[in-house]
Amino acid sequence: MLATTLHGPGDIRVERVPDPVITQPTDAVVTVTHSCICGSDLWPYQGVSPSQPGARIGHEFLGRVAEVGAGVSTLRVGDLVVAPFMFSDGECAYCREQLPTSCVNGGMWGKANDGGQGEAVRVPFADATLVKLPSDADEALMPALLSLSDVLPTGHHAATIAGVRPGATVAVVGDGAVGLCAVLAARRLGAERIIAMGRHETRTAIARTFGATDVVAARGDEAVEAVNELTGGEGAHAVIEAVGTSQSMQTAISIARPGGGIGYVGVPHLGGEGLDIDRLFKRNIALRGGVAPARAYIEELLPDVLSGAVDPSPIFDTTIKLDEVAEGYAAMNDRRALKVLITL
Amino acid sequence: MLATTLHGPGDIRVERVPDPVITQPTDAVVTVTHSCICGSDLWPYQGVSPSQPGARIGHEFLGRVAEVGAGVSTLRVGDLVVAPFMFSDGECAYCREQLPTSCVNGGMWGKANDGGQGEAVRVPFADATLVKLPSDADEALMPALLSLSDVLPTGHHAATIAGVRPGATVAVVGDGAVGLCAVLAARRLGAERIIAMGRHETRTAIARTFGATDVVAARGDEAVEAVNELTGGEGAHAVIEAVGTSQSMQTAISIARPGGGIGYVGVPHLGGEGLDIDRLFKRNIALRGGVAPARAYIEELLPDVLSGAVDPSPIFDTTIKLDEVAEGYAAMNDRRALKVLITL
Repeated sequence: MLATTLHGPGDIRVERVPDPVITQPTDAVVTVTHSCICGSDLWPYQGVSPSQPGARIGHEFLGRVAEVGAGVSTLRVGDLVVAPFMFSDGECAYCREQLPTSCVNGGMWGKANDGGQGEAVRVPFADATLVKLPSDADEALMPALLSLSDVLPTGHHAATIAGVRPGATVAVVGDGAVGLCAVLAARRLGAERIIAMGRHETRTAIARTFGATDVVAARGDEAVEAVNELTGGEGAHAVIEAVGTSQSMQTAISIARPGGGIGYVGVPHLGGEGLDIDRLFKRNIALRGGVAPARAYIEELLPDVLSGAVDPSPIFDTTIKLDEVAEGYAAMNDRRALKVLITL
Repeated sequence: MLATTLHGPGDIRVERVPDPVITQPTDAVVTVTHSCICGSDLWPYQGVSPSQPGARIGHEFLGRVAEVGAGVSTLRVGDLVVAPFMFSDGECAYCREQLPTSCVNGGMWGKANDGGQGEAVRVPFADATLVKLPSDADEALMPALLSLSDVLPTGHHAATIAGVRPGATVAVVGDGAVGLCAVLAARRLGAERIIAMGRHETRTAIARTFGATDVVAARGDEAVEAVNELTGGEGAHAVIEAVGTSQSMQTAISIARPGGGIGYVGVPHLGGEGLDIDRLFKRNIALRGGVAPARAYIEELLPDVLSGAVDPSPIFDTTIKLDEVAEGYAAMNDRRALKVLITL
């Protein structure tokens, strides 16, 4: 089959690789119909995160079950399924506590495992990992359903761990796909005021359609001042940090209201910088971040996606075929594309 | 009256200062009968935190109301009261949200305000700030009641924000008075297993009487290994960081279970060091710290202190008179004393 591989900074290829086969009775093989490129795929693409030459890449996919192992009981060939960006056994202490991202037998797609940006994927622990979708789901819903793989649950995780509650004032630092999904999630959780912070007008326009009540285009001190002005000097109850740099973390800490919380889901690339612990301490601001346990959220989010009540599909502004994936990476890296959908 | 003042590193004096007088109708003047020295008083004492020569010091006190302003409605002369370590107006948004430490009109005892280590204190917003105690409370209960001023609610805050729940495994980094009160608070909140981490045997012995089930005397990597062994490699659900150094924070982060939380109440003196954000992110560990909103907790803790169900008094291992306060500081600074009680 064909799959996307990374051979070095900027060197994305589509190559022929061995077809996936069932190796464990709990495996399934899924034929991918929809995949996409994640902002976090750009870290290895840029060479900021290390990767082995030829490593598989991509961790978001949706498709049809092509084959199941003898131990798979809930899935049949032909089922439409979405995969969370990590697989998990569904049985360990962490899985039972709804933290499948810490599963003792879990892992992420790509690298030594099959990647999501390929024609098929061997899925370990298929019963626990995959979520069955209505087999007759409308084709137009596929991008939104694919977003359940990562970007929507990640936005939801950010909003949840930041402490978004009905009536809350929320600030979202970052206008990437995750930040936009966090706006959507914050609105879904009942936020009254949502301040979207970003300087790409096409993106903040999407933020407004997702529920942002205010947009702050400034950065740094100017951005902090703008949020202070919008919140009567208090800051936001819940701040979502969806970038992962020192500056964005610093901004997030500076605009959080005393007693409030920060939820960070931008993969942190900041060392200890930007973490003003004195301010966090004096103001009793909670700092909570983490890899979103997407699998644990999909069932909660799915009905709203199916009904159209939550529609993240506008984040996919570019659609390509698998053989155009290198151009898709380049477009996202140059910020010509917000998020690239790959149809197979 | 006499009050404790700080004139430079190690230079603690008891000096004659103006008697406090009512300046606002909402003021009261309290005659102090019991005060104490806090671990955080040692930062300015050591010169680590800046202070003005002659600054008042001490923020924990219990005493009798000596005078009330015309606007004070709930207190009378002669009432026995305990003061939380910060005063607050009881009316602002933060006070209403039980975060009086962020009160817009609030402040801390000492420096330009009267300090707790003196014969009397002018108390702003007396109705909101002071908590009335039973006037006939037994003299033997006074140290425990005084602990409501800071150290017990701070331990309780640490346990609360670390996420201690019934059945939880808790680790407490630090065997100072706050760490020991955190052990007491964790037991009160239903922790099943409490690992006290400290290397002063007399202190960890107190931790055991307070409810610690295990003691780890090692530091650094060895301590992390010991906790890992005690918890089957998982770590503690809730970790309390009650020291405030880079090393203690690093230890706290290293022993937290995925999905768990860290509550830090040691005034942070670490810059960004020790904050391994990659680990926090990968394991979804919440980091929450802050100045304890003592006033908001006193009513909850008071019944258990009055009944003797919670008795932090063993932390006071040294009792002095006001004129011995310089020696009290020296004893705490040299770790000859755990916590010094001052009776007036």
